[in-house]
Amino acid sequence: MADTKPAISFIGLGAMGFGMATNLVKEGYPVTGFDVYGPTLDRFTAAGGLAATTPASAVEGKAVCVCMVATAQQAQSVLLDSEHAALPSLPQGAVLLLCSTVPCAYVQSLERQLAERGRADVHLVDCPVSGGAIRAADGTLSIMAGASDAAIDKGRAVLQAMSDPAKLYIVKGGVGAGSNMKMCHQVLAANQILSASEALGFADHLGLDLRSAGEALVKSDGWSWMLENRLPRLLHPEFKPIASALTIILKDTSIITSEARRAGFATPMTSTAEQVYFSGLGRGYGPDDDASLVRLYTEGKGKVGPVQGTASTDDEKLKLVIDLLRGIHLCSAAETIAFGQHVGLDLDQVFELCINAAGGSRILSTVGPSFLKAFVEGKAQGGWAAESGSGEATLQSIASELEAAVNEAQSLKLPLFLGSQALNLIRLGLKSAGAESSKQAIGSVVRVWATS
Amino acid sequence: MADTKPAISFIGLGAMGFGMATNLVKEGYPVTGFDVYGPTLDRFTAAGGLAATTPASAVEGKAVCVCMVATAQQAQSVLLDSEHAALPSLPQGAVLLLCSTVPCAYVQSLERQLAERGRADVHLVDCPVSGGAIRAADGTLSIMAGASDAAIDKGRAVLQAMSDPAKLYIVKGGVGAGSNMKMCHQVLAANQILSASEALGFADHLGLDLRSAGEALVKSDGWSWMLENRLPRLLHPEFKPIASALTIILKDTSIITSEARRAGFATPMTSTAEQVYFSGLGRGYGPDDDASLVRLYTEGKGKVGPVQGTASTDDEKLKLVIDLLRGIHLCSAAETIAFGQHVGLDLDQVFELCINAAGGSRILSTVGPSFLKAFVEGKAQGGWAAESGSGEATLQSIASELEAAVNEAQSLKLPLFLGSQALNLIRLGLKSAGAESSKQAIGSVVRVWATS
Repeated sequence: MADTKPAISFIGLGAMGFGMATNLVKEGYPVTGFDVYGPTLDRFTAAGGLAATTPASAVEGKAVCVCMVATAQQAQSVLLDSEHAALPSLPQGAVLLLCSTVPCAYVQSLERQLAERGRADVHLVDCPVSGGAIRAADGTLSIMAGASDAAIDKGRAVLQAMSDPAKLYIVKGGVGAGSNMKMCHQVLAANQILSASEALGFADHLGLDLRSAGEALVKSDGWSWMLENRLPRLLHPEFKPIASALTIILKDTSIITSEARRAGFATPMTSTAEQVYFSGLGRGYGPDDDASLVRLYTEGKGKVGPVQGTASTDDEKLKLVIDLLRGIHLCSAAETIAFGQHVGLDLDQVFELCINAAGGSRILSTVGPSFLKAFVEGKAQGGWAAESGSGEATLQSIASELEAAVNEAQSLKLPLFLGSQALNLIRLGLKSAGAESSKQAIGSVVRVWATS
Repeated sequence: MADTKPAISFIGLGAMGFGMATNLVKEGYPVTGFDVYGPTLDRFTAAGGLAATTPASAVEGKAVCVCMVATAQQAQSVLLDSEHAALPSLPQGAVLLLCSTVPCAYVQSLERQLAERGRADVHLVDCPVSGGAIRAADGTLSIMAGASDAAIDKGRAVLQAMSDPAKLYIVKGGVGAGSNMKMCHQVLAANQILSASEALGFADHLGLDLRSAGEALVKSDGWSWMLENRLPRLLHPEFKPIASALTIILKDTSIITSEARRAGFATPMTSTAEQVYFSGLGRGYGPDDDASLVRLYTEGKGKVGPVQGTASTDDEKLKLVIDLLRGIHLCSAAETIAFGQHVGLDLDQVFELCINAAGGSRILSTVGPSFLKAFVEGKAQGGWAAESGSGEATLQSIASELEAAVNEAQSLKLPLFLGSQALNLIRLGLKSAGAESSKQAIGSVVRVWATS
């Protein structure tokens, strides 16, 4: 049945694109690849693909085009603006799967540009992916696809070939909704990559053994997918192997904060993370693995003293680090859910996607339903649900525990960029409740972000 | 009439204390000094003072004791806890002027400890000072004094001898109120010391000539007392002379954020500044002048490219830097005023003190009255005044201009810790106003902080 599969053009054969394209070859698709870097094309033909020397010649006669370049600027160039751009050669009624992570604003402008150039016939699918190079090559990516029903139908077989069956999310809202979903997920990624460094740096100043502390944190309520994933590199003396460079997550934070500005939405957590990432970039850490940002937290240890913390036992110290992570993850989850609501996403789908992806955290799993309830009940009652369920931790208790961590770090004189931000945001969430704050449900912290 | 002046003991002859004590000598007071550092005592006797070898012997028989040590811990030690502590030797009914900058919590605990030790007879005055070593030696400091009426009466002559006649503020609220007033002022100081570095770092990445940019900024709406004061050191290749070390402002941020935690109050601006200060400390910049923090912003310039900003002319670039400063100073002013309200200070007095001191900024002078109005009218109406006066800039316009600066910095890949924080806070302030935000008065941004 391989001969019933349509010919595909594939533009952008980088770390992710190469794996995705060769997987499609294995699945029996005739795939014609294009990349600006010649040696990659040789590797691709060796893997059974066909090579094209321009975007235009790649797409000619192919009913499906997958575009997996690194940025919106590159997409604009290869699809529309460069000398041998793809669009004029794209067949009538073709499907264009834009898998690059781009701002919602860009993919929506691309849809408009297609119409303005008389190519409304092109079935554009906004379908960023997540999962890394290995899952790309295995055809088990997470994919978040927003498009017209017709475009989804035409693109579905190829989307399925590239994704894990349980992780192909058709996102309601058309072109732009896929990018918005990815963006909201990356709010978690951006904060939790940095929280892993912040936690290990704090543990280091506390004098904990980092290896055993790391193992304990991964089993604790401070768990995040990112912490577990970055831990081996955090513990490596040179933060090796380089699996995800600082510059990669900076592309995402740039999309998040620029889209937030466009939407008039506040992203205090991600903006904080972004400034720290820029600091790392200024230090020359751009090409290094993002786990190496722990260096921004460990420097000065033993040199800014005398310093004197209050925690004496390892258990007390570990609890401070766990409470730091819980507080940060609570606020990054709140920022994610509130941003999703602001851009009109289905919050149940945001939650389901995030807990099963690289943005997952123990706190998100436990508190996420309370966030969704806060939105639903808040809307229904014209306010915000403020009663916590019986036995549930209150926002005040989370604040008190985070406060102890921030207090200790102040005594030890190390920065906790995300932790101190989270504490202030929780304080802002608590303040409007006044005397009733002791009864406030954790989920109600989203009121800081949410448009009431 | 010099012989009618009472004998004074003076504990703590550091950079500030030495000037204050020798000024009192010049004013005709018999002053007995104590300091842990012997050579200082020799200098003090050479300047006409008397020297004591313990706090106890210094205060013996003196109706007035001035304490000007560096921290609350030192005050506790010299006054109460050390082997030859002052208290047991302090005469009945003596005045104790605590001029050190300490947390409100500490000076109030000192008042309790005096009572617990049966020394409620001591007239404690909580009177931190501001103004630097030169004004200390001239007897023209700003002093913020909180105490009982009786204690103020007894201490007034010495307070007047140390201060500028227009800058002796008797703060309502008793012991603790003076420290709270100083703390609120230092919110401005802490943010505006750093905003000067952030602005110059931004100007550097924009490619502006720093000397002419600095001169233009000082004349602009981005003016702050700190910017003008730090500018020569910001422009000096080695940030010399060292006039105020990073470690000095870190003592103040520590008081601000720890008192905020105690009060359940959010200080998102000062907390951000504090984390950046901790970063500088970790880099080894602790003993350097605080203007040297511009290094945290200038590094990476020319190395993280290719970067491409949007501003092309010097006027456009300068406007971005001014708009950055305006946004930061707006939010640091809001944090100051709201914190003052939270701890029960007279806001008119907070405003008057701050515009005439090192916390002054053009924005505070113009917007401060709108903040005070927002509190008064907000309270009166059970909400927040939202109508801007005719011709006044709106919060939305401030946000848009700050947004352009943050956007440009993102393109140039440098951190704007305070600027991005301020933008998010203004966004939070705008969000509850919804469609009416275009009419929102600038002063209404305080609603983010204020307990409603």
